[in-house]
Amino acid sequence: MDVADLTPAQARERFRGGERRPTAGWCRGWTQANLIAVPKALAYELLLFAHRNAQACPVLDVGEAGAFQTRLFPGDLRTDLPGYRVYRDGRPVADRDAVVAEWREDLVPFLIGCSFTFEQALLAEGVPVRHLEQGSNVPMYVTGVPCEPSGVLSGPLVVSMRPVPEPLVATAVEVSGRYPMVHGAPVHVGDPAELGIDDLARPDFGDPVEVRAGEVPVFWACGVTPQAAIMASGVDFAIGHLPGHMAIIDARDDDYRVT
Amino acid sequence: MDVADLTPAQARERFRGGERRPTAGWCRGWTQANLIAVPKALAYELLLFAHRNAQACPVLDVGEAGAFQTRLFPGDLRTDLPGYRVYRDGRPVADRDAVVAEWREDLVPFLIGCSFTFEQALLAEGVPVRHLEQGSNVPMYVTGVPCEPSGVLSGPLVVSMRPVPEPLVATAVEVSGRYPMVHGAPVHVGDPAELGIDDLARPDFGDPVEVRAGEVPVFWACGVTPQAAIMASGVDFAIGHLPGHMAIIDARDDDYRVT
Repeated sequence: MDVADLTPAQARERFRGGERRPTAGWCRGWTQANLIAVPKALAYELLLFAHRNAQACPVLDVGEAGAFQTRLFPGDLRTDLPGYRVYRDGRPVADRDAVVAEWREDLVPFLIGCSFTFEQALLAEGVPVRHLEQGSNVPMYVTGVPCEPSGVLSGPLVVSMRPVPEPLVATAVEVSGRYPMVHGAPVHVGDPAELGIDDLARPDFGDPVEVRAGEVPVFWACGVTPQAAIMASGVDFAIGHLPGHMAIIDARDDDYRVT
Repeated sequence: MDVADLTPAQARERFRGGERRPTAGWCRGWTQANLIAVPKALAYELLLFAHRNAQACPVLDVGEAGAFQTRLFPGDLRTDLPGYRVYRDGRPVADRDAVVAEWREDLVPFLIGCSFTFEQALLAEGVPVRHLEQGSNVPMYVTGVPCEPSGVLSGPLVVSMRPVPEPLVATAVEVSGRYPMVHGAPVHVGDPAELGIDDLARPDFGDPVEVRAGEVPVFWACGVTPQAAIMASGVDFAIGHLPGHMAIIDARDDDYRVT
């Protein structure tokens, strides 16, 4: 069965079984989300950070402290994502297939919107999505653009990049702009140096993709931004998803489309 | 000088001097906001309550704990509103012109969007605004509609009401819908009983207004909703604005308009 045809529950079951793969293209029509789980003591500052940097950190759902389910994720947040990254003192210390042992009773899980949500809409309007063509993870870059701080939390904006043929840039902007809760329109079109990105061939997360002649790199705010803030701020403990290895939730892409 | 022509700084200066009046119609083109200040220990649950009930509680700005300024309110939140309501153990215990003595070092101030923001746009499209005509406060009602809880916080939706001539209802919906960050489109048009409101002539906050023949009562989510939650939840301490007596902030109504 093509992974595009799986339901979220079926995909979660596969990941619970240990499959570690980027989720771009999985569960067509269903929404994917970034995970960031922080100790309750930091939950206010994280939620305010998300509010103050809403394009990068649109909050789709928040669980109770210690819960490993949320309304939109009726699975087990400790096992049902394909990959996790554990942070201690602001440093990634382990990538895991499951975080049952690491999950703490005081952890508050946040699900943050993901730009994979509008990729089917881009394709439907004829905008190619290179990492889907390549069967790879989307490239993500830590920029030089600072987020607005919240308490102890500060850090740079993280972006995802998709190369878009010049004649289709306006379409890509317009189509993604219809999904403001999953990053919406791009934050930048064109020269990566404007964002402080040195080399498109060396993404900070995910895989590089080919930018062909006549294509422009287009950058969207990325829900890995909270993880960059965890690192930049030296937060003592947090668990995120492995970039590109998303939580697949019981919501439809269309739920986040505005008209 | 007509109060409509005052700048926010001028209005704040007047209120600092002790003037207690509803602010509908003040500072034309400038944005007004609801205030709710809660102890830091409750700030996370309040921010999450606001997020979960975003149409009623759109967060425009959040101050640091103990601060009495925010980015959008460069005055003194303890003196520069025309009226305050102090809550203890979920009960309103005092209405005040200033809350210098009551303000605590652990209070976190939240500014929440207000439907006054789209009233000039309604007028510009020919939709009358009765409480402005009457020179009174907008009528507000506690409904029977429950908000989504957050931790200890739960409570009913509060709405404001404006009577709209039937042929202009669609216009009123469309115009206010352009301002999603200040409650946006109505939550209900027509029969007040549908919201659990018994008697339009007896609002829970503000003043009653005349509903004329051929007019329909139209209800918008209201930023007094957090204060209703403070009451319903028995929160030990909070300070709000006196309903209708808003914080006038350094933002333009147009800043909250989407196209």
